[in-house]
Amino acid sequence: MCQLLGMNCNTPTDIVFSFEGFRRRAGLTDSHSDGFGIAFFEGKGVRIFRDNQAGHSSPIADCVKQYHIKSFNVIAHIRKATQGEVTIENTHPFIREIWGENWVFAHNGNLTSFPDMSESFCQPIGSTDSEAAFCYMAEQLKNRFRKKPTEKQIFQVIQEITKELAQGGTFNFILSNGEWMIAHCSTNLHYITRKAPFGTAQRIDDDGVIDFRQHTTEKDKVTIITTFPLTKDEIWTKMEHGGFVFFKDGDKVYEVLGTPKEAIDDGTLGNAKAA
Amino acid sequence: MCQLLGMNCNTPTDIVFSFEGFRRRAGLTDSHSDGFGIAFFEGKGVRIFRDNQAGHSSPIADCVKQYHIKSFNVIAHIRKATQGEVTIENTHPFIREIWGENWVFAHNGNLTSFPDMSESFCQPIGSTDSEAAFCYMAEQLKNRFRKKPTEKQIFQVIQEITKELAQGGTFNFILSNGEWMIAHCSTNLHYITRKAPFGTAQRIDDDGVIDFRQHTTEKDKVTIITTFPLTKDEIWTKMEHGGFVFFKDGDKVYEVLGTPKEAIDDGTLGNAKAA
Repeated sequence: MCQLLGMNCNTPTDIVFSFEGFRRRAGLTDSHSDGFGIAFFEGKGVRIFRDNQAGHSSPIADCVKQYHIKSFNVIAHIRKATQGEVTIENTHPFIREIWGENWVFAHNGNLTSFPDMSESFCQPIGSTDSEAAFCYMAEQLKNRFRKKPTEKQIFQVIQEITKELAQGGTFNFILSNGEWMIAHCSTNLHYITRKAPFGTAQRIDDDGVIDFRQHTTEKDKVTIITTFPLTKDEIWTKMEHGGFVFFKDGDKVYEVLGTPKEAIDDGTLGNAKAA
Repeated sequence: MCQLLGMNCNTPTDIVFSFEGFRRRAGLTDSHSDGFGIAFFEGKGVRIFRDNQAGHSSPIADCVKQYHIKSFNVIAHIRKATQGEVTIENTHPFIREIWGENWVFAHNGNLTSFPDMSESFCQPIGSTDSEAAFCYMAEQLKNRFRKKPTEKQIFQVIQEITKELAQGGTFNFILSNGEWMIAHCSTNLHYITRKAPFGTAQRIDDDGVIDFRQHTTEKDKVTIITTFPLTKDEIWTKMEHGGFVFFKDGDKVYEVLGTPKEAIDDGTLGNAKAA
């Protein structure tokens, strides 16, 4: 299993506060040490950094921290390999072009059955279930719509494809085209939307503290999506099993509820440490 | 116009000596300051770093220098924008999945006519002629072969597609799938293969010196391809107008000669500084 981190905002935001807690789970406060990756949208472009070293100590992750890149949409992932070797090609997030846009995808879970994509137009490069699932999604979307449909249509079709793929196993994911971010919860996914009045927050993983008032304006909205909460003094929403949320400009635009459940123990629950 | 740098080897090699001279042309010894990018193959995966800042001063380029990544195949590009704004999505090298492989492409030139890809399966994300040409290439390859053909077939089809695209303007490029590297010269492209007995070399752009004997074994073969030579005391081969070369493991495997010509003045010639 792995852990996911996503950020969707209405203003370019520095994710370093969240990322610094998150990446401690890649070898220090947890054992997701089989590589990390982070993708920052910048307009239609993406800056993507991946390493097959553990996120907590990777020099590439240090480089990311140093530059304080601001973005409207960010997706990060720390890996605990279930399928596929610890190589760059098996490191999330994965990226594909769909309708002239960069689409970025990261998965937490394990699909024990998924479609054979070996003769598809969009094929996986590595050997993970995650990339195969994303390629299936991309192929289906391109086959159904030659040109980009509405956001509502996209959200609808993503749900249909997800339900099909989720029959193969655990399928938590975060997906973004740089304009919106879709989150699907199969077992564990949480989110929080920070907006005025802003306060302070303390990280779970190393007690780091931030006063958001020093970094924000009244209009800012910043949503953080993650496998398990990153701060101890804020209220995070736990997504329901089978639920979908569509975020844009930091706001929840569409939501499809799933089955409310107590946190499902997929083996990572002991590491949750949520307040 | 822009400048290109490629490396194809039979042993994982650190490109920093060449890259440090090359990136000085991005603002110091030349004016290719509209962003830079460098892609390192690592198995089937790719580490890609891009910045829309000038390569000579970009903190991302500093980060690349610091880690001394070793690779069999590297493609780098410094941009002097002709078409498309100075943004990440318009920054070479471009990357697409073809037959389950990462393909990386960088272009120097200017295509004033190129195919409309707006309803294709593979669409450009940015607004450069270069990315549109690469997408056309990817679409054609996937349409002609559902599964990966032989290297000889790939080289043949790339030539056909290139001749079609090159009717639209200047089209120097370097292309790699991580196993081989194809170079096409429209106006200016040079290469050198370094092998035993190794010697020393002095960079043109800052007089930096290297003794390759300290970094190599007898079996090593390293080919460097670049718009204009990077060293002053080695003999570089100038490719012919319309010529193609296919390199693998540092060796020239296939070559199609073009028209031998004196260097063609495409406006960058004054900056050649080759010995």
